[in-house]
Amino acid sequence: MSSIYSDDSLALHTDLYQINMTESYWADGIHERKAVFELFFRNLPFGNGYAIFAGLERILDYLKDFHFSESDIAYLKEELGFQDDFLSYLKGLRFTGDVYSMVEGELVFANEPILRVETTLAEAQLIETALLNIVNFQTLIATKASRIKQVVKDDVVMEFGSRRAHEMDAAVWGARAAVIGGVEATSNVRAGKRFGIPVAGTHAHSLVQAYKSEYEAFHSYARRHKDCVFLVDTYNTLKIGIPTAIQVAKELGDKINFIGIRLDSGDIAFLSKEARRMLDNAGFTEAKIVVSNDLDEYTILNLKAQGAKVDVWGIGTKLITAYDQPALGAVYKIVAIENEKGEMEDTIKISSNVEKVTTPGQKKLYRIIDRENGKAEGDYITMYDEDPTTEKRIKMFHPVHTFISKFVTNFDAVNLHTKVVEGGNVIYTNPDLNEMRDYAHNNLHLLWDEYKRSLNPEEYPVDLSQKCWDNKMRNIREVQDKVDEFSTR
Amino acid sequence: MSSIYSDDSLALHTDLYQINMTESYWADGIHERKAVFELFFRNLPFGNGYAIFAGLERILDYLKDFHFSESDIAYLKEELGFQDDFLSYLKGLRFTGDVYSMVEGELVFANEPILRVETTLAEAQLIETALLNIVNFQTLIATKASRIKQVVKDDVVMEFGSRRAHEMDAAVWGARAAVIGGVEATSNVRAGKRFGIPVAGTHAHSLVQAYKSEYEAFHSYARRHKDCVFLVDTYNTLKIGIPTAIQVAKELGDKINFIGIRLDSGDIAFLSKEARRMLDNAGFTEAKIVVSNDLDEYTILNLKAQGAKVDVWGIGTKLITAYDQPALGAVYKIVAIENEKGEMEDTIKISSNVEKVTTPGQKKLYRIIDRENGKAEGDYITMYDEDPTTEKRIKMFHPVHTFISKFVTNFDAVNLHTKVVEGGNVIYTNPDLNEMRDYAHNNLHLLWDEYKRSLNPEEYPVDLSQKCWDNKMRNIREVQDKVDEFSTR
Repeated sequence: MSSIYSDDSLALHTDLYQINMTESYWADGIHERKAVFELFFRNLPFGNGYAIFAGLERILDYLKDFHFSESDIAYLKEELGFQDDFLSYLKGLRFTGDVYSMVEGELVFANEPILRVETTLAEAQLIETALLNIVNFQTLIATKASRIKQVVKDDVVMEFGSRRAHEMDAAVWGARAAVIGGVEATSNVRAGKRFGIPVAGTHAHSLVQAYKSEYEAFHSYARRHKDCVFLVDTYNTLKIGIPTAIQVAKELGDKINFIGIRLDSGDIAFLSKEARRMLDNAGFTEAKIVVSNDLDEYTILNLKAQGAKVDVWGIGTKLITAYDQPALGAVYKIVAIENEKGEMEDTIKISSNVEKVTTPGQKKLYRIIDRENGKAEGDYITMYDEDPTTEKRIKMFHPVHTFISKFVTNFDAVNLHTKVVEGGNVIYTNPDLNEMRDYAHNNLHLLWDEYKRSLNPEEYPVDLSQKCWDNKMRNIREVQDKVDEFSTR
Repeated sequence: MSSIYSDDSLALHTDLYQINMTESYWADGIHERKAVFELFFRNLPFGNGYAIFAGLERILDYLKDFHFSESDIAYLKEELGFQDDFLSYLKGLRFTGDVYSMVEGELVFANEPILRVETTLAEAQLIETALLNIVNFQTLIATKASRIKQVVKDDVVMEFGSRRAHEMDAAVWGARAAVIGGVEATSNVRAGKRFGIPVAGTHAHSLVQAYKSEYEAFHSYARRHKDCVFLVDTYNTLKIGIPTAIQVAKELGDKINFIGIRLDSGDIAFLSKEARRMLDNAGFTEAKIVVSNDLDEYTILNLKAQGAKVDVWGIGTKLITAYDQPALGAVYKIVAIENEKGEMEDTIKISSNVEKVTTPGQKKLYRIIDRENGKAEGDYITMYDEDPTTEKRIKMFHPVHTFISKFVTNFDAVNLHTKVVEGGNVIYTNPDLNEMRDYAHNNLHLLWDEYKRSLNPEEYPVDLSQKCWDNKMRNIREVQDKVDEFSTR
């Protein structure tokens, strides 16, 4: 966001209630009690069988720089009426805690902690909104990109959506997330500069309109650009556009690298097949056909079924806005808090919406991998003091329908959390973006195809350990007792 | 976006092809020819009968600051291989043209120019992506907010969506756009600081969990905050939450301003009616009921039909992501360009998708208002040299089904475009945000109710003048002749 303040900080990028609650904690002297919060979502987006986590780099930047600026403090005092005593506490506040997180590109499923924050109650509360804002969007886009990549397989996919993104941050962080999910390039130059993403694009209709004819426009383009993809649908694709592209490519021969043509409107199935035939007949059998026109995994699947001849897919609106489900519902919930004796106590949120009941306590997350076939058996949530890596045999059971269970032996239990912030210091180095994409890509081999199909995938198991489940039930009973006691008074 | 570059500029916030085309124009010496581009969308979002324009302030900031920074130039050279001669042109480039625009809060319809840019071909091309990125998102959110406001009528609506927004810019610019559309407050403190929006919020479930009981938590909250809205659904809304809120409100009496309660889960229709009854019985007939739980205009309409007792609506995900249609498809098309003789020539883009055919030429936009009843008869697009304000009688006809026509007399023709940038200088002062909201609100009185209903509204007329229509037909014929000539060669 451009700002009229020279000292715009992101500490105010939070919901007001976070600051209100922090004030109450501070006034009661409990603001520095240790608290554990977990970040997770309850449902996978797009009906997909998995999600791809993205957002950690942005979170680490945010935590590293977390502070209230002078103009922030002035605003809180003058406009919102916060008092000096509390504001002097905020003024000195930095993030001092620990963060455990999945790495970017990790496969993630519903109801498992993506990220765990262990810090003071005040700090944990104040950072909630920004963390969710970042993870919800970036994970959504990485997952959408991965779905598209599953359908196009070895074809190239490029991200073209800046003009339809939800303002500027979404365009650039979305392009980055799309790369983690499997996209090869973006059209957004700023995202290319900032993140080292390959940048793609040739020309638009306006070039043809400015020169009044494709012939002039293509020649002009070729004079300065060796790699040429000509856009052929400004006036008439089959009658003028493609014939002119072929003519210019022949005239210029080796002077250019004629990569191919781009179709941006009309019936892509029909036009791409005609284009292929015309290019092949002219001897340009290696020329690529690039298409872009409101595409997503559904239209691509259909175009492929119709035998469309497409080599490169440019995806705009539907990817950058996650059009068919534009929000991921990740939440951030307190699971444990220090009591007055300095001991950690579990805490739970009950709800009449059953799926909103939280799983209390400080927990760990493992991926259980079969040593024989290398496939994941499921994810396994344990209490903090459990260690499945030392166990020979574990029982995995469905966290709702508990009679669905299996015993697993001969497995590797892989801890999915990395300590990324320690005592407020970022101790994690972000890998190169290509490494993240490769990591996500290779990780997909852990999943049976049934979890990866885009329509009606099997549900991947995310199970609680027996101890974790017992603890949740105990916490629920305690709340129920409290409710009963209260209502019979 | 946070950046590793100290001189991050937004000039690179563009699609690569814009820079490629600019290079071709520059190499051919036509980059400084005057060009006219228009920005418009082809379909109203959400099936709504109108849209509310937002985004101008951000566009003016962007144009004022438009320049390529040193690190931008270095990136274009070293990573993308652009050559020094062209880069030295870019280095000195600023926006030098004129911009005519609707003001923020204006009612806008499909296929009419929201904004017209008249500048050099190069500059007009380079700014396209950013302009669309801004207008598409902000107009979408302002329109969604207005739809919601139409349904809630005099109830208060607050924007609570930061955690689900598409990254940070969307949260803050979205909050601002929502206010233009009719929202009263936001939970995002940074948006409050930046734009002077009232900021709202009290506390979350974690406060109750931190204090282990609602009783303690509400008391703690009330010690530091005079205005109290207590969240009542952490454990059990009817059995504990509301009774405790009432108990604490009674105990504290005048020491606090007990505003009311908030419901965030469960069956809002049922719970709000029960809550109303319990609050009324306890004597708190003025206490407000605030609800927030995945709401939008559809659920609100249903809740109202069921007699839900709600005073304040907190809208999160569905507003800030424009959930049911998360993209507006505004485009930016060249309509005229200077020829080698220095004369302006019209240009057109033909497409096999009929609705993608552009309307050529430099045009103006008027709203035709009936002097008798004060209602809008429709919008009227003329060529630049026409002046309907001096005419007594105009013929308005449908731009596709031309036999649908009417003669209008006794009207005011209001020019909807304001010159906001002249010779690169911003000459427009943004009004206060409240003024923009009031302007949007008052403008809605121009529309008959049939255009404003949320389901299946009537289509508001956006018509071309006879001259404008004749000109479009002539341009289409010229292109058709060219296609015929080409394909019979």
